[in-house]
Amino acid sequence: MRRRTTPDAGRRSEASRHAILTAAFELAGEVGYAKLSVEGIAARAGVGKQTIYRWWPSKGAVLLDAFLHLSEGDGGESDGGESDGGESDGGGGMALPDTGDLEADLKLVLRATVDEFADPRYDRPLRALTIEITNDPALAARYAERLDGPMKEAKKARLRAAQEAGQLPAGLDLDVAVDLIWGPLLSRWLRRSGPLTHAYADAVVETALRGLYAR
Amino acid sequence: MRRRTTPDAGRRSEASRHAILTAAFELAGEVGYAKLSVEGIAARAGVGKQTIYRWWPSKGAVLLDAFLHLSEGDGGESDGGESDGGESDGGGGMALPDTGDLEADLKLVLRATVDEFADPRYDRPLRALTIEITNDPALAARYAERLDGPMKEAKKARLRAAQEAGQLPAGLDLDVAVDLIWGPLLSRWLRRSGPLTHAYADAVVETALRGLYAR
Repeated sequence: MRRRTTPDAGRRSEASRHAILTAAFELAGEVGYAKLSVEGIAARAGVGKQTIYRWWPSKGAVLLDAFLHLSEGDGGESDGGESDGGESDGGGGMALPDTGDLEADLKLVLRATVDEFADPRYDRPLRALTIEITNDPALAARYAERLDGPMKEAKKARLRAAQEAGQLPAGLDLDVAVDLIWGPLLSRWLRRSGPLTHAYADAVVETALRGLYAR
Repeated sequence: MRRRTTPDAGRRSEASRHAILTAAFELAGEVGYAKLSVEGIAARAGVGKQTIYRWWPSKGAVLLDAFLHLSEGDGGESDGGESDGGESDGGGGMALPDTGDLEADLKLVLRATVDEFADPRYDRPLRALTIEITNDPALAARYAERLDGPMKEAKKARLRAAQEAGQLPAGLDLDVAVDLIWGPLLSRWLRRSGPLTHAYADAVVETALRGLYAR
C-alpha cells in the first residue's frame, strides 16, 4: 500500500518500468520463487538494482505490479492475461462469461484456471506472488485492492446475474459462494495436494452447485 | 522424501533433536517465515548450525518434522496439537468427532481450525511450512505422505460414516468433498482474502452441504 502513482511517476522512464515488469514476470516463470531476486530482475531488464529499489520495496511488489501491468493490457508478453476469467485477469474491465448457463460458464472459467496453473510461465510467477502475499500482509492488502478485489467483483457479478435469473437463491452469501467455487482449486494448487484437471474443475463446480447432501 | 528414519537415527541425540524441533516451531511462531533461519533455530536450540544441516536439508524440512513431532504427541509445548480435528492433528491416530450429526461435527472442526489460524503461535509456523511446500515439490510430497495424508484419511472416514448413515450419497467423490469443505477456509487463510470467523466456518459447512442452487 506504500507505493502509489504519484507525481514522480512522470519522471520515471516508462521503458525501464516496462522492461523491469516484463523481466520480473518472465524470470519468475523460468526460475521460480526461490531463485528470483531483485538482482536477477535488474540484470535481465538492463537496469541497476537501485533503480528497482527506488520504485519497489521488494521482489513481491515488483511481481504484483507485473501482474497488474499484464491485466491492464499494456503488457502482453505472456499468456497470463489471455484466458477467460482466469485468476490472472484482474483488471476493472474483466467479466466472466454469461451464456445464461451458470454451470457451463463456471466450468469454462475453472478449466481455464487449471490450464494456467499447468503452464510454468504462469504457475511460477503466480506461486511466487502468492508466497509473498502469504508472508506480507501489506502486499496482501494491495493485492486485494488492485487485483483480487476486481476479480472477486466480476465473480460475484456473474453469481448475481444467476440470482436475478432465479437460478440461485436471493439470500445466498456471495462471498461464501465465491470461496466455495474457487477455494478448492486454489487450495489444491497452492498446497500441491492433488492433481488439477478439467475433470476436477467440473466436479468442483457440480458439487458446489448441488451440495454434498443427497437430493 | 529424502530423509527417513534410518539406522543412524539411533546415533542422534534425541535431546538435541527435541530441542531443535521445539526451537523451530517456537521461533517460527515468534518471528514468522521471512526471519526464520537455520542459524536462528540452532542458536535457540543451543546446537551448531551444522548439526541441523546434518539431519535436515532446509528450514522447511525442520518445520515439517516439528509439526510431525507435535502431532505424534511427543512434543506438547504448544497448543498446536490440542484442538479436535484442527489441521495440526495429523497423526495416524487422529479421528474427527462423530456424534451422528455431520453438520455439527464439521462446524466444530472448522471452528477449531479458525481458532488455530487466529493464534500466531500456530498461524505463523503453519504459514511458514506452507510457504515452503508451495515452493518445494519434494517437501510437499513428504508433507502429503506424513501429515496431510493421514489428516485427509480421517476427514474421508467421517464423510464415509455419513454415507453409511444415508446422509451423503453413496456415489459422492470424497476427495472433491474434502476440498469443498476445507478448501475455502485454507484458501482464505493463505491468501488473506477475508476474515476468518466462526460464522464463516458455519456458513462454509452449511453451503457446502446444501449447495448453491436453491432447493
